[in-house]
Amino acid sequence: MQEQQKENLEALRHTLSHILMQVLEQLYGAIPAIGPAIDNGFYHDFDAKTQITEKDLKNIKREMIKIINKDLPVEHKTLPIKEAIKLLKKKKYIYTLELAKDLQKEGASEISFYQQGEFINMCKGPHLESTGKINPKAFKLTKIAGTYWKGDEKNKMIQRIYGIAFETPEELQAYEKMLEEAKKRDHRKLGKELDLFCFSDLVGPGLPMFTPKGSTIIGELQKHVEKICRDYGFQRVMTPHLAKIDLFKISGHADKFADELFHVTSDKKHEFVLKPVQCPHQTQIYASRPRSYRDLPIRYMESEKQYRAEKTGEVGGLNRVYAITVEDGHSFCRVDQVKKEVINMVKIIREFYTELGFWDKVWISLSVRDYEHPEKYIGTSKDWDTCENMLQEVSDEMNLKAIKCEGEAALYGPKLDFMFKDALGKEIQIPTVQLDFATPKKFNLVYTNEKGQEENPVMVHRAILGSYERFLVLLIEHYVGAFPFWLSPVQVKVIPVANEHQDYAKNIFEKLRQADFRVEIDNSNNNFGKKVREAKNEKIPYFIIVGNEDIEKQKLTLESRDGEPSLQISLEELLEKFKRENNNLN
Amino acid sequence: MQEQQKENLEALRHTLSHILMQVLEQLYGAIPAIGPAIDNGFYHDFDAKTQITEKDLKNIKREMIKIINKDLPVEHKTLPIKEAIKLLKKKKYIYTLELAKDLQKEGASEISFYQQGEFINMCKGPHLESTGKINPKAFKLTKIAGTYWKGDEKNKMIQRIYGIAFETPEELQAYEKMLEEAKKRDHRKLGKELDLFCFSDLVGPGLPMFTPKGSTIIGELQKHVEKICRDYGFQRVMTPHLAKIDLFKISGHADKFADELFHVTSDKKHEFVLKPVQCPHQTQIYASRPRSYRDLPIRYMESEKQYRAEKTGEVGGLNRVYAITVEDGHSFCRVDQVKKEVINMVKIIREFYTELGFWDKVWISLSVRDYEHPEKYIGTSKDWDTCENMLQEVSDEMNLKAIKCEGEAALYGPKLDFMFKDALGKEIQIPTVQLDFATPKKFNLVYTNEKGQEENPVMVHRAILGSYERFLVLLIEHYVGAFPFWLSPVQVKVIPVANEHQDYAKNIFEKLRQADFRVEIDNSNNNFGKKVREAKNEKIPYFIIVGNEDIEKQKLTLESRDGEPSLQISLEELLEKFKRENNNLN
Repeated sequence: MQEQQKENLEALRHTLSHILMQVLEQLYGAIPAIGPAIDNGFYHDFDAKTQITEKDLKNIKREMIKIINKDLPVEHKTLPIKEAIKLLKKKKYIYTLELAKDLQKEGASEISFYQQGEFINMCKGPHLESTGKINPKAFKLTKIAGTYWKGDEKNKMIQRIYGIAFETPEELQAYEKMLEEAKKRDHRKLGKELDLFCFSDLVGPGLPMFTPKGSTIIGELQKHVEKICRDYGFQRVMTPHLAKIDLFKISGHADKFADELFHVTSDKKHEFVLKPVQCPHQTQIYASRPRSYRDLPIRYMESEKQYRAEKTGEVGGLNRVYAITVEDGHSFCRVDQVKKEVINMVKIIREFYTELGFWDKVWISLSVRDYEHPEKYIGTSKDWDTCENMLQEVSDEMNLKAIKCEGEAALYGPKLDFMFKDALGKEIQIPTVQLDFATPKKFNLVYTNEKGQEENPVMVHRAILGSYERFLVLLIEHYVGAFPFWLSPVQVKVIPVANEHQDYAKNIFEKLRQADFRVEIDNSNNNFGKKVREAKNEKIPYFIIVGNEDIEKQKLTLESRDGEPSLQISLEELLEKFKRENNNLN
Repeated sequence: MQEQQKENLEALRHTLSHILMQVLEQLYGAIPAIGPAIDNGFYHDFDAKTQITEKDLKNIKREMIKIINKDLPVEHKTLPIKEAIKLLKKKKYIYTLELAKDLQKEGASEISFYQQGEFINMCKGPHLESTGKINPKAFKLTKIAGTYWKGDEKNKMIQRIYGIAFETPEELQAYEKMLEEAKKRDHRKLGKELDLFCFSDLVGPGLPMFTPKGSTIIGELQKHVEKICRDYGFQRVMTPHLAKIDLFKISGHADKFADELFHVTSDKKHEFVLKPVQCPHQTQIYASRPRSYRDLPIRYMESEKQYRAEKTGEVGGLNRVYAITVEDGHSFCRVDQVKKEVINMVKIIREFYTELGFWDKVWISLSVRDYEHPEKYIGTSKDWDTCENMLQEVSDEMNLKAIKCEGEAALYGPKLDFMFKDALGKEIQIPTVQLDFATPKKFNLVYTNEKGQEENPVMVHRAILGSYERFLVLLIEHYVGAFPFWLSPVQVKVIPVANEHQDYAKNIFEKLRQADFRVEIDNSNNNFGKKVREAKNEKIPYFIIVGNEDIEKQKLTLESRDGEPSLQISLEELLEKFKRENNNLN
C-alpha cells in the first residue's frame, strides 16, 4: 500500500471514530475515553450509564450517517495546555482530562484537538477535511465489548464499540469476504472437524496433542523433508529437551529468551531449563569428538520439540504454543565450503516448496546488516562483506532475484529468508539459511586443518518447514483440509454398497493396507448415500465403491473427492495409480 | 541360588571382612568402622594414620591367608549392652562404639560380637565356624577407596578396602571372566568407540545425545516396532512432554513418582510438570471426542521422551537417565474385546523378539495379585478373577507356559511379563501386557454402548521394547557392537584399492545410496590395509573392495565382517542380497 493511501485510511478511520463518539454523546450522554484507528477499522471507548447492546448498533450507525451526510467540516485546533485542561474540565471529559494532565506532567505545552459540529475532543489525528468525505456504504459497526480504562483491571469497566471501515464499498466487501474465507479455513475449526489435534484442560493450553490423523500428516512431512535432506548429506540426531542453563548462557539464548525460558527443578535439587532452540545441543554433538578438515561438512538435522513460555493469554490453536516441534538443521563446515552448503540448502528449500506447489509465489530477502549501525552485530566488517557478497553470488548463480533488505540480518550473520503467501494472501516467512561465525567460537568448536592447526568451523543454520505446528496451520488453511494424496491421513475409503459386498470390499481393503496405503473401510449399517457423504465430509481424496457389477467384473469403482470422473478399474491398476500419486506429491 | 548356599556365602564374606580388619589392625593399628558382606564379596571401612595404597594389598592378603591357614575358631558372643560399650571403649573402637551407643539409645539390651584369635568386634553375622573354612584361592582384594564415616561428607574421610570372594577358585574365575566380558561389552565403552551417543558437561549428566549413528539405530528400531504394531491396528500419536500436575494427580502418578517429578515454571507464572509416564496424555486424546462401541478398540502408540528426576549420583551411561525415550502403547477396548487385544499384543512381542533371536530364551510370568492381601489392589475380586483367568487362557491357547507369580500384579490389574537374559546371563524384564480397569474410570473415559448407554472402556497397556536407551544397551552388549545388517548405522563401506579405482567405487557408492542402503566410501589417502582395518574396527557388516580385476569384469568384491568367504559379484546381485538381508532381520 502506498504511504498516501495509508494516511487517508488512517484519517478516515480516526474521523469515523469521532463521529461514533459524537453520536454516543448525543444519544446516551456518553463520556469519551480513547478512540484510535486500527487495522481495518476503528473503535471508541466510552463511559455511559446505558449498557449498549448489539441491537443498538443499527440506530447508532444511522445517526452516524446523518452526520456524514451533513458534510460537517473537521477543524484542527491546537490549544495551550492550560486552556485544553479547562475545556476538558468544563465538558466533564474525565478520561481525556486525565490524559491531558498526564501530558502536562510530561511537560507538554499544547494539545491538539479536532472538532466537527458540536463535538470536540483531544486527538493527534489525522482526520479528513469534512465528514462528507466518508462513503457511508464503506463502513460497519461490528461489535461491542467491555474494557477497563487504560487496560487496567483495577480501573472502571467501560464500553467499546468496534467498526470496520474502508474507502469504498468494494473494499469493505472484499475484506468481509476475506474474513468469511478465513473462518472457513480456520485451522482450529478444521483441525477439530477432521480430528487432527486436540487440547485437554488437564494437560493445559498451548500443549497440543496430535491424534492419529494429525500425527500421520506430521510423520509424512518429517519423512519427506528428511529424505530430501539426507540426499544432501544431512544426518538425523536426537537430543533431549533439557539442559543446564550454562549451555544457553554460552550460546546467548538464556539472555535472548530470558522471559520465555521454562525452568526445571526437582526435589532432588536438579536445575535445568527446557531448550528454547535446537542449535546449542547440536554443537555439543559436534564437540563430542575430535574433527579433521576431512570430516567436514558435518550436517545434523533434528525434528524435536522446543519449549517457550509464551504469555498465557496469547497461546491458542497451533499458531502459538508452548511445545513447538521444530525441524532444524545445521552444517558445520570450512570457510571454503560455505557457499556450496548455502547452495545445497537453497536447493533443498526449492525442492520442498516446489513439490508442494508454493515455489512460484516466493520472494527471497537477502537480509544484510544495518550499515549505519555496525555496532549491533558480532564480527568484523570484512567477514560481513565476504558473507554478504557470497550470498549475493548464490542469488545470482541460482537466479533467486533476492532483494537486499538492510537491517534484517541476524546478530551473528547475514541470511537468505524465503517469503511465501498464505491462503489469505498474508506474507509468511518460514525457510531461512543463516551464516554464523560466532556460535562455533563461543563453544570453542574446532577441527584440525591440513597443517595440523585448530580452526573454528562455520555454522550454517537452515530451516525448511520451520515448526510442524505452524506448517500444519499453513497446510490446513491452504488446502481447506483437503490434503493432497500423499499427506492425507486417510488416503482412500472402501465403501460396500450393501452387506453382501462386504467380503469383496474387505479383500480390497486388506490389499491396499498391505501395500502401505492408508485405507479405511466403512463397515457401518448406514445406507449407501450416508456412507458416501461421510467420506466426502472427511475430505478423503478417493473412495472405492464396491457393488454387484464390480464383483462380477472383478473390478472396483473409484470416485474422487475432486470430482474426477469415476473409473471402473482393476485392483492392480488402482495400486499403480496410487503409487504414482504418492510419488508425485503436489 | 539355594537359600543355604546364599547363607554360606554371606558367612564366608563376613568372616573375610573381619579377617581383613584383623590384619589392618595388626599392620597399621587401624580402627574398624563397618565391614559388610556385599554382592560377590565384601569390604571393610577403617581409620588408619597410614594411607594404604594398591601395592599394599598383596601383603595384606598374604597376612589374611596366614590367619586362614591357622584355622582359628570364630566365636559368637552376646554381651549385655553396658559391657559391650565398655569393651569397645577399652579397645578405642570409636566408630563401632558410636554404633553401639546408637543401639543403646534405640533400647537394645545386648549386642552380638564375633571373635577370631585376638580380634573381636560387634557384628550381626553370620560367620563361618572357623577361618580355615575359607579357600585362600577363592578370594581377592580388588581395590581401595576413600569414604566418609556413615556416608556423610561432614564426617571424617576414612579408608575402604574391597574384596571379592566365592566358595571355590572356579567360581572366582568364572566371576572374573564375567567381569572381563562385561568390560568388553560395556555399552559406555562401545558407545564411545562406535560413536553412538555422547554426553556434554554443558547439557548435563543423565541427558544423552544421540549421534547420527545412534540415531540411525533408534530410528530403525522405531520404524520396525511401529510397522509390526501398525499391522495390528496401532496408530501413532504425538503428545507434549509437559502437562499440568492435575493430569498426574488423577492418574495417581503424581503420588507414585512424587520424588521423581520434574517441576516446570516460568517467570510468567506457568506451572507444569514433565511427564514421568506416557499413559495419561493418551487418555486425553481418547477423551477428545465422543466414542461409540463401534469405534473400539482404539489403539495408540507413541515413541517419546518421558522425564524422571533420578538421584544425581545414580545416573550414568544409558542405563539410568533423566530423559527416557519410551515406546508405549495402549488399547482402549470393550470388555468382550480384551482377550483378543491381549493375544494380539503377545503376538507383536513374539514377532519382535523372534526376529531379533531372543524369543527362545524367554519365560513368561503371569503376574497375579497377592491373594492374602486383596486390600493392596484396586477393583473387585470378581473382576480380578475374570482377568487372571483370561490371561491364563491366553497362556494356554498360545502355549506360552506362563508361570503364575503371586503378588507381581500391578496395582490396577494382572499382567503378563516377559523375561529375557542379557549377554551376561542377567535376567531382564522388558515387554509387558497389563490389564487396567481403573484408569479409564479415573479419567471418566466413556463410550456409548449398543443400548445408547455410557460405559467405561478397558485400557490394556503394552510395552514392546520399553525404553530405547535401555534397549540400546541390551543390543550393544548382546552384539558387542556388531549389529545385524538392518540395524547397522553403516551397512557397507566401499574401499577402492588405490586412487585409480575411486571413480568406479564412487559409482557403486551412489547406486547403493540411491537404493537407500547406509553406505560410506573411504576416500582417505590411507593405504589399503589400513582402510580395511578401519572398516573392521567400525564393525561394519560388509565392505566392498574395488580393484583392477573388479573393474575389468564390471563386478565388485564383497567381504564380510563375520568372515564369510569373499564374493565377486555384480552390483545387481549385491542389491538383491542386501534387500534380502534387510528383510531377514535376525
